[in-house]
Amino acid sequence: MSENTRTEIATLGQFGLIEHLTKDFRNASPRTVAGVGDDAAVIGGADQEQYLLLSTDLLLEGIHFDLTYFPLKHLGYKAVVIGCSDILAMNGLPEQITLSIGVSAKLSVEHLTELYDGARAACEELGIDLVGGDTSASVTGLVISVTALGRVPRTAVAYRSGARENDLICITGDLGAAYMGLHLLEREKRAYKDHPDPRPKFEGYEYILRRQLKPQARKDVVEALAAEGIVPTSMIDISDGLASDLLQICHSSKCGARIYLDRLPIAKQTYDMAEELHADPVVAALNGGEDHELLFTVPLAMQEKVARLGGIDIIGHITPRSTGAMLVTPDGSDIPLQAQGIGQA
Amino acid sequence: MSENTRTEIATLGQFGLIEHLTKDFRNASPRTVAGVGDDAAVIGGADQEQYLLLSTDLLLEGIHFDLTYFPLKHLGYKAVVIGCSDILAMNGLPEQITLSIGVSAKLSVEHLTELYDGARAACEELGIDLVGGDTSASVTGLVISVTALGRVPRTAVAYRSGARENDLICITGDLGAAYMGLHLLEREKRAYKDHPDPRPKFEGYEYILRRQLKPQARKDVVEALAAEGIVPTSMIDISDGLASDLLQICHSSKCGARIYLDRLPIAKQTYDMAEELHADPVVAALNGGEDHELLFTVPLAMQEKVARLGGIDIIGHITPRSTGAMLVTPDGSDIPLQAQGIGQA
Repeated sequence: MSENTRTEIATLGQFGLIEHLTKDFRNASPRTVAGVGDDAAVIGGADQEQYLLLSTDLLLEGIHFDLTYFPLKHLGYKAVVIGCSDILAMNGLPEQITLSIGVSAKLSVEHLTELYDGARAACEELGIDLVGGDTSASVTGLVISVTALGRVPRTAVAYRSGARENDLICITGDLGAAYMGLHLLEREKRAYKDHPDPRPKFEGYEYILRRQLKPQARKDVVEALAAEGIVPTSMIDISDGLASDLLQICHSSKCGARIYLDRLPIAKQTYDMAEELHADPVVAALNGGEDHELLFTVPLAMQEKVARLGGIDIIGHITPRSTGAMLVTPDGSDIPLQAQGIGQA
Repeated sequence: MSENTRTEIATLGQFGLIEHLTKDFRNASPRTVAGVGDDAAVIGGADQEQYLLLSTDLLLEGIHFDLTYFPLKHLGYKAVVIGCSDILAMNGLPEQITLSIGVSAKLSVEHLTELYDGARAACEELGIDLVGGDTSASVTGLVISVTALGRVPRTAVAYRSGARENDLICITGDLGAAYMGLHLLEREKRAYKDHPDPRPKFEGYEYILRRQLKPQARKDVVEALAAEGIVPTSMIDISDGLASDLLQICHSSKCGARIYLDRLPIAKQTYDMAEELHADPVVAALNGGEDHELLFTVPLAMQEKVARLGGIDIIGHITPRSTGAMLVTPDGSDIPLQAQGIGQA
């Protein structure tokens, strides 16, 4: 490895890094419809009714999860959900996954059985098949790689790049709960560090814990949109936080956005935990990430149809690029949205 | 993590482990033709002319590669080759890959650019598209996950399970060179440990070095087989070593095998290096792995057609299961083949 010039990765950021590394790749296959730069790659042919969707995620011990409090069964479940969420974010349905693991010596067959039990539960709930994977020793910690394959009708693909001025910005479920659940787990870990009989206090916070440990892939939303005949103009799943993910849509769609602080869906337990920790629940909602809800845009004319679906909040609208991406506070001030992931990478 | 019972992973072995972990998964999608247990998953529908192939591999620093002597450009190249080799081993052609990386702080943007330059070179040579991936920080070392997607005519899929009695056992290229190349690199690393100006001696060993650092995916062979109208009855790529990979075919096809020691293709530099290191070149060929050559079987009647292709050695034939898998020495003794990977996991 030459050390003549050294640019730290942090100077580019995750998305800048991917753009830099992949800018010289040229697609050769006529079947590659869309590659790097969306939730999933889109593969098919002009003559085909259905496109394939392909997505891959990496989960690393010490970065994405902490095995001292994250049960392996939940981790297996969550890995499958994370993989499938990327397919759903293209408005498609997942059908198959592969799961690869790098396993450190501290884990036994029983541990891995727990991990796969969780993965199987998620596969059964989502109606998808585990079709492959790889196993390896790891000198460093547990490594999980999940690849999801899905399908979407050619006319229904929702890219990040399709948002248009005046489109409504919609969000499913609520935001920030997974992040506050992580904080609760971290607090109890600190409280019971080296304690022979840890009894963490989770009463009253079951919802935010579940959001961290057992997030749901919103297959129900993609199915409901299809049933109502709604094709989002753009869509992304909330993995890095609303601010970062909305900025991705703005970047890809070359547009701006205005979202309203008092319309952000935040659960009561998220507020309560934030209060206990002297944290700001809005920051958790904007930058916490790991919600795996769907953020999407629809034309203004779809407002009633979207409202009929239930469980979806309209939090703002798309604006011209020149106006930037703004959070509007209840007193009417505009705060520029910033992509500062505070959750896990 | 409960510690009531603890079974070490080594007691099951890599293939036993995968079987154990995936035995309770049930495939739900009618499009899942074949899942876990072959080089790649096979996805399609009975009405389709072409099946999809999906495969994934994990490469971990400290297990699969050592960055002190493995140039990042070669590593990127090799990652793509490893992914594509699994698609070729199903008699299919790779079309798209995704590449995910977990990056430790010691690596800079320049390092990753080298890695991706190598990956791009392999993509261009193989005519495939990079369509996605994930990047993450890693607290532990470089993690690479590669997923390959390919296609194969429905009537040409080569599973591990199709070998039949009297089929000829064929191997492309030569064996053991990648393993001896690894040994050479390890020897020079030891010789120049803490040396301010390392000058490793590689003269005369360019071939085995290249086999370790820049293995080739045998797309040419799959294309040549198709051009000659040969559909192998079974196929696998040599990643764990001839013995282990042939035993996989025997296991899946419920058959035995006889291969002849004096027919194993071993390059001169592999012999030379083995002699220098007082090692057995046959052990390298049988158990070294990482050759990424194709091991396949064809009906006896195909003998002349296979010979016409060139660069393929017929090393033995398939026998009834009851006779086991044997290596026949020049003096006529039978030695049972054993799956003891001695190379990298």
